[in-house]
Amino acid sequence: MSNHIVESTPATDSAEITNPAFDVARRWQLPPIERGKSSFDCAQLRKVLDGDQREVREKVMEIIAQFERFQGTNIEDYRAKVLQWTEQAAAKGIGRTFMLRSLGGEEDLPKFIAAFETFAYFDINLLVKLGVQFGLFAGSIQRLGTAPHHQKYLVNAVEAKLLGCFAMTEIGHGSNVQGIQTEAVYEPESDCFVINSPTYDSGKNYIGGAARDARLATVFAQLKVADKQYGVHAFLVPIRDEKGNACFGVTLQDNGLKMGLNGVDNGRIWFRSVRIPRTEMLDRFGRVSPGGEYNSPISSQNARFFAMIGTLVSGRISVAAAANCVAKSALTIAVRYAARRRQFGSPNREVLLLDYPAHQRRLIPFLANVYASHFAIAALVQENENDPNSKAVETSAAAIKIFSTQNCTFTIQECREACGGEGYIAANRFSALRADSEIFTTFEGDNTVLLQLVAKNLLSALKDKLQDMPPAGRAQFFLQQKLAEMLRKHPAYTFNLTYDHLVQTRYQLALIRIRETANLSRCARKLRSLLKSGKLEPFAAFVHLQLELMELARAHTSRLILERFASSLEKVGEPSLKRILKRLCDLYALHEIERNRGWFLENGLISAIKSRAVSHAVDRLCRDLRADVVHLVDAFGIPDGVLAAPIAV
Amino acid sequence: MSNHIVESTPATDSAEITNPAFDVARRWQLPPIERGKSSFDCAQLRKVLDGDQREVREKVMEIIAQFERFQGTNIEDYRAKVLQWTEQAAAKGIGRTFMLRSLGGEEDLPKFIAAFETFAYFDINLLVKLGVQFGLFAGSIQRLGTAPHHQKYLVNAVEAKLLGCFAMTEIGHGSNVQGIQTEAVYEPESDCFVINSPTYDSGKNYIGGAARDARLATVFAQLKVADKQYGVHAFLVPIRDEKGNACFGVTLQDNGLKMGLNGVDNGRIWFRSVRIPRTEMLDRFGRVSPGGEYNSPISSQNARFFAMIGTLVSGRISVAAAANCVAKSALTIAVRYAARRRQFGSPNREVLLLDYPAHQRRLIPFLANVYASHFAIAALVQENENDPNSKAVETSAAAIKIFSTQNCTFTIQECREACGGEGYIAANRFSALRADSEIFTTFEGDNTVLLQLVAKNLLSALKDKLQDMPPAGRAQFFLQQKLAEMLRKHPAYTFNLTYDHLVQTRYQLALIRIRETANLSRCARKLRSLLKSGKLEPFAAFVHLQLELMELARAHTSRLILERFASSLEKVGEPSLKRILKRLCDLYALHEIERNRGWFLENGLISAIKSRAVSHAVDRLCRDLRADVVHLVDAFGIPDGVLAAPIAV
Repeated sequence: MSNHIVESTPATDSAEITNPAFDVARRWQLPPIERGKSSFDCAQLRKVLDGDQREVREKVMEIIAQFERFQGTNIEDYRAKVLQWTEQAAAKGIGRTFMLRSLGGEEDLPKFIAAFETFAYFDINLLVKLGVQFGLFAGSIQRLGTAPHHQKYLVNAVEAKLLGCFAMTEIGHGSNVQGIQTEAVYEPESDCFVINSPTYDSGKNYIGGAARDARLATVFAQLKVADKQYGVHAFLVPIRDEKGNACFGVTLQDNGLKMGLNGVDNGRIWFRSVRIPRTEMLDRFGRVSPGGEYNSPISSQNARFFAMIGTLVSGRISVAAAANCVAKSALTIAVRYAARRRQFGSPNREVLLLDYPAHQRRLIPFLANVYASHFAIAALVQENENDPNSKAVETSAAAIKIFSTQNCTFTIQECREACGGEGYIAANRFSALRADSEIFTTFEGDNTVLLQLVAKNLLSALKDKLQDMPPAGRAQFFLQQKLAEMLRKHPAYTFNLTYDHLVQTRYQLALIRIRETANLSRCARKLRSLLKSGKLEPFAAFVHLQLELMELARAHTSRLILERFASSLEKVGEPSLKRILKRLCDLYALHEIERNRGWFLENGLISAIKSRAVSHAVDRLCRDLRADVVHLVDAFGIPDGVLAAPIAV
Repeated sequence: MSNHIVESTPATDSAEITNPAFDVARRWQLPPIERGKSSFDCAQLRKVLDGDQREVREKVMEIIAQFERFQGTNIEDYRAKVLQWTEQAAAKGIGRTFMLRSLGGEEDLPKFIAAFETFAYFDINLLVKLGVQFGLFAGSIQRLGTAPHHQKYLVNAVEAKLLGCFAMTEIGHGSNVQGIQTEAVYEPESDCFVINSPTYDSGKNYIGGAARDARLATVFAQLKVADKQYGVHAFLVPIRDEKGNACFGVTLQDNGLKMGLNGVDNGRIWFRSVRIPRTEMLDRFGRVSPGGEYNSPISSQNARFFAMIGTLVSGRISVAAAANCVAKSALTIAVRYAARRRQFGSPNREVLLLDYPAHQRRLIPFLANVYASHFAIAALVQENENDPNSKAVETSAAAIKIFSTQNCTFTIQECREACGGEGYIAANRFSALRADSEIFTTFEGDNTVLLQLVAKNLLSALKDKLQDMPPAGRAQFFLQQKLAEMLRKHPAYTFNLTYDHLVQTRYQLALIRIRETANLSRCARKLRSLLKSGKLEPFAAFVHLQLELMELARAHTSRLILERFASSLEKVGEPSLKRILKRLCDLYALHEIERNRGWFLENGLISAIKSRAVSHAVDRLCRDLRADVVHLVDAFGIPDGVLAAPIAV
């Protein structure tokens, strides 16, 4: 909505009309952003952040520079615009980045993720639409299907000529995917699968693309062959014809107005006896022969389910990366505003917001988190390349998705409040950033559920590890306990309150690791005793331990991110860059320790005076980083035209 | 926006069309909300919550039952609707509740606040519009003006026949009201004040009513008489004529699209040599004679400013109360949804969300906070009646406004996430609740600024107290230090880990009080030494101590709220009500202690094992409250038709 101006211009005094004080059509006359001198070269830092993916990021920046941000409030217009952008992005080859080389793609997932996340700087609706079309729809065909599906659909899908959706979640079952109720029954007479939604609650829900654009859906359903259940599998089901009408037997419903993402057409889908040819089952992990015989490369139904679901891992990495870009936008806006806005103090020169300790403390730790998240995600993308589908990567992806999306939500909130009334004006972008990214903590795995996934994976990895070890090795494993003893008793640790000691990565890691191991062994012990006693079934035991498991997952995440951040630093050669990144890494680590100081104190791992010293070190780091903070957001490299918030450009 | 339904109904099989699974126009078929048996009588608890104001609350509920919630996305339509509701509410006499009896009003501020907050259950836009028209515009005339202004304007203002606005905040000065730049210069020749906006930045900003509806504005400006400055005063300035055109010399600009509250017409105002009669100055705290002589009942310019600003206190109480109602709506929705939604576990009967420890832990402490806030606000309303304009009430109002609005923001966030995807659907109301209430933490005093106000007031009260005391009395004052010693050393405290001990209000209060006194004496000591050393001017010293001051203010708020909650309990006779409220009070207190356990541990006020015992007590309270939790939200008494979220009715 453009501003509606009611202006009374007296005809008597034309000289005064030109008084700039009343030229309200001008952009807000904010003073310049006070950048000062930085301790490092901003362009060099940007290079470090961009890593191998500078080129594709710039390509996406060029694409979005051509787009004009949607300003209206009409939802159908917004959806049409987002679709148009999607087609334009597809035409520029964004979808080809991850597609199989055999079909002319680049098969380069890291490149796709870098491209994807960059769209988050422009419009999260477009990001999500691209995520649905490329990551979920085309991605599911590529990963769950086999050559015939690839040949038949992939090229059109990545060119956005065939629009699709990913129909997994149901009204009654979101997090519990194994509990979905949509059925796919093999019918030998017709050599077809019959897709059915047996109940209202088994309707697919929140399906991006279902309300307006999607023609074909990857539908997850319980496979039944000759009255035998084979668990969840994926099927390609046409839902709309060329004219946009629902296909025979398909009922579509618009999810209506949402908190955000109103440019994405989420909807519900029900199926009534919809027949699809047998060959339209995505059959990489399980197939049915024309005679009605089921076979799968994975014999256990549970393992098969997790193999299929494992393909969600790259989606989680992508969401983590996108969320971090959203947080970068929010911080860029809030930090720059704080570097130009003055309030209180001498009437001639009031104090810059950024010079208030409270303002430093509210923004700078989030900046450290965003840098930490950035390097953790970059490492994760690489780990996923080296060892795709591994349990370890699944665990890390879940952990980092939780951290990045939650940090995104908190960052936007703090940034909005830090900009006061200006933060509430839609033109300054927090409104859309927040409303559109809000669902990140829920979709691609609800964070609460993912925390438990992380903890369970850690417990089962521990079990495997201990089983494979000779008894002597097991003792070795508990060496961490010795570390705890050292932290508790060694004078070099307990009595050392100096800043230089606190900023030793080795010390920070020791504390943060011990929190994880202590929680891990505690959970393992409690779980074993609950199960041994026979009082509780495994599910009930996990519910009983839910709070402890979540604490374990959080401790794991802290450690994971600090390790990745710290080891990324080691690869940075330029001393001034290394210094500034080390400070951010210290702030991330010490702020994590401060936030959890209750736990460290309770467990005698830090003393009362040391705990206070940690807080003072956090204060000091915020103060020390203040001079560089504008340059640190500049290094994200968001062009002014893309950032576009009037208070920040 | 109503749902857009694309439905393909095959003509061949009409019998199946009636299959309820596909009757998508039906309301979502959620299972019933599982209420179970409560330990108390819900209607009785509601009576306790309503206190003296049951009648007016029911009256407002009747009014809003007549209104239909706005569903569109067009902002001009929304504004028109909100204005219409405002006029209808005024016609029902809502504005008369606080107006002077001499003019036919009821002069009953507690009644007005109760009416006001109840509108928050319906639409926060209407709430804010009423707040602007009655609380700020009419309220400023009543409190800052004298009899002629009352007679001339008040009746029309409270009947919403004269629409007005409250023009205090400027583009360049929001929190720092003393720094505003709008000028009101007395011109003896015309016996007028000339109102001017000397710069672009001195334009009034975010003024509710300025963009569309307001005719008359209470304008805050620097008074200048014969080249002498007298500080900030308020003036009544017409900004729009009967036809809605801007008055001569007035420039109006729409603030445009905001994050929320788009049904409220916020705008900017600039003045160029706008002349108003001398009598249009609101002159209770300062007036200018026809001869150009200034006089005021308050000689100090600073004291005069704070007397004027003191009239904002009732606005802060009202915002605190409204924010708590918003939090009540959010909790009612999330708790009821958790009492019907099942996920994971046995396929035949999955586990109710409310039975997960993590779900209890995420929602129930907020419920305790909302109850705590409720009783604290009720007590504050009474204190404001007994001792209006006192410094103590100003401090409490700021503290409780901070707590209630921040708790509101956090509660909505947690409730949205706890409802997963359903929380993101606009019909389930979190979208509007959050977007519209988001600015509560900023307006009527930015929370960060108010934290410092609270701390400064506490420090100056301490100074006054010590000055008035004989030296022996001063020692008395530091008795709290003895309490700290007791907490640290007395075995009855240090070694007692029992639940029964932890839920003693006396013990909780001792801990929470000591946190305040320790922070207060620490701040006082530091401030004195900073000022004594002469190194820093007072302003710079306060900036230097900003983080400590904010910590003090938070500690004060905890104590204030716990005291009020605990003493409200004492007045409850019915044992079952007393028991349930005591549990909520314990949860509030122990959760506060848990959240700040880092501080308590650092200061040796609790031991490591005691700290863990506190966390276990919080877990236990959440578990114990689980059976009553649906009844506890039912007791808020929000009618289903007003709550209206499909997942919660």
